[in-house]
Amino acid sequence: MRVAFQGEPGAYSEAATERFFGPTAEPVPCASFDEVYERVQSGNCDRGTVPIENSLAGSIHRNYDLLLRHDLFIVGEVILRVSHNLIANPGVALADLERVYSHPQALDQCEQTLKALLPAAQRIPTYDTAGSAKLLKERDDRHAAAIASRRAAELHGLSILRENLEDDPQNYTRFLILSRIAIQPASPAKTSIVFSARNVPGALFKSLSVFALRDIDLTKIESRPLQGRPWEYFFYVDFLGSLQEERCANAIANLKEIATFLRVLGSYPRDLGAAGGAS
Amino acid sequence: MRVAFQGEPGAYSEAATERFFGPTAEPVPCASFDEVYERVQSGNCDRGTVPIENSLAGSIHRNYDLLLRHDLFIVGEVILRVSHNLIANPGVALADLERVYSHPQALDQCEQTLKALLPAAQRIPTYDTAGSAKLLKERDDRHAAAIASRRAAELHGLSILRENLEDDPQNYTRFLILSRIAIQPASPAKTSIVFSARNVPGALFKSLSVFALRDIDLTKIESRPLQGRPWEYFFYVDFLGSLQEERCANAIANLKEIATFLRVLGSYPRDLGAAGGAS
Repeated sequence: MRVAFQGEPGAYSEAATERFFGPTAEPVPCASFDEVYERVQSGNCDRGTVPIENSLAGSIHRNYDLLLRHDLFIVGEVILRVSHNLIANPGVALADLERVYSHPQALDQCEQTLKALLPAAQRIPTYDTAGSAKLLKERDDRHAAAIASRRAAELHGLSILRENLEDDPQNYTRFLILSRIAIQPASPAKTSIVFSARNVPGALFKSLSVFALRDIDLTKIESRPLQGRPWEYFFYVDFLGSLQEERCANAIANLKEIATFLRVLGSYPRDLGAAGGAS
Repeated sequence: MRVAFQGEPGAYSEAATERFFGPTAEPVPCASFDEVYERVQSGNCDRGTVPIENSLAGSIHRNYDLLLRHDLFIVGEVILRVSHNLIANPGVALADLERVYSHPQALDQCEQTLKALLPAAQRIPTYDTAGSAKLLKERDDRHAAAIASRRAAELHGLSILRENLEDDPQNYTRFLILSRIAIQPASPAKTSIVFSARNVPGALFKSLSVFALRDIDLTKIESRPLQGRPWEYFFYVDFLGSLQEERCANAIANLKEIATFLRVLGSYPRDLGAAGGAS
């Protein structure tokens, strides 16, 4: 089982992959989210792991857009407690730091702590947390730190200057597992869909009524722009239940009657560990 | 009238400021969105201009979060057609380019065009479009380009290698005008609010019913994470109408009965020029 993930070894997506599949799967590092989708779509990998949302910084919108551009299904979710570390080359002290490299989401999650700890240091956004750690090592940079996982520090022989850098310990990232083939899970399950509504008053309200009338619990709604139609939107909705359940299948049939576009991204087992129970 | 905006001179936010206030206002460049809010809050500036949403790349979530952290009101909106240029030092040719610098939103808006034009060039995210142009000039970098406005190229004596770099000509950015004092505009107006609903099935549906029952047209809904409460959300909603109108005031009174938190961010005149009419 080859599982594509974005980032360098030591990335949080790699940890999520290991949590979901156990030690037997082979994690395959990818340079971009696009590459994750393409490797799964082409059959080069069997599954893909992508972050979709963080409990502090919000959604990873790129992955919402990529879900729509590819024909893959969501077959699982993993909710991971994310703990960030301030990482530097051995011997580098806090007072030496002029720059902090990390993914913008990680910088956001540590914003207040960084402001207090390193008020003058420049924050430099990168595409990757673990990749930022690798960069420090390669350049032997004595004036920069990275924000990344403990594993990334260990892999590159770097020092951890501070642990638990995140502003709030309630820091969880939700990852989706992608596959070419949909599954039909039993309860407790979650289903993800994307739809667009007509651009008329009350259209979103009517769309959500198909769930409310059946007491189906929405866990997430996200809007993304409809390309070429300024100020119209796709709505991504997650709800509790599987399409195997009649009331969920009926809700989707009902929504098809009123939506201008509808696609089911997949039903999959809920992750009830960690903060999963709260979702 | 001093108006704070984020970015260097030549930024799109500066152009939006000029469109809204005319030539008499003094645009005040700020290093970050936070600084824009702080300058207005402290009285150092009279107004602030911040981008809130792009029709291709989506919302600027940071500004949604900052709206909630400050006590400012939205008193206007500006919808600006955004046209990006590929900018380099004079004499630099397309074949010389190894890197492209710009704000992640601008890189996103030009993604397909860049992929076709410069498949091998590295995209480097920065905090600022106009600032990327300035950087090229300062370093006299002969292997990099920036994506920024025509004005930014002119200000720094740089060349435009390609115009209209955006993937879709329907590329509009909506800016908000912020002030310490709310206004009570007549129609045609828009109102922005933020609220949180109880974490129970149907809560969002019930919240939206207060608008649907009064035929009030929602133009935008955005969800943002509630800090410290994983998988609970604030909802930012824009609707057509002013709080001066009785049905809008009634809808808000109704929503107060059921929301766990509600704040009115402001009523303001709609921008009906450009793509404003479509919103």
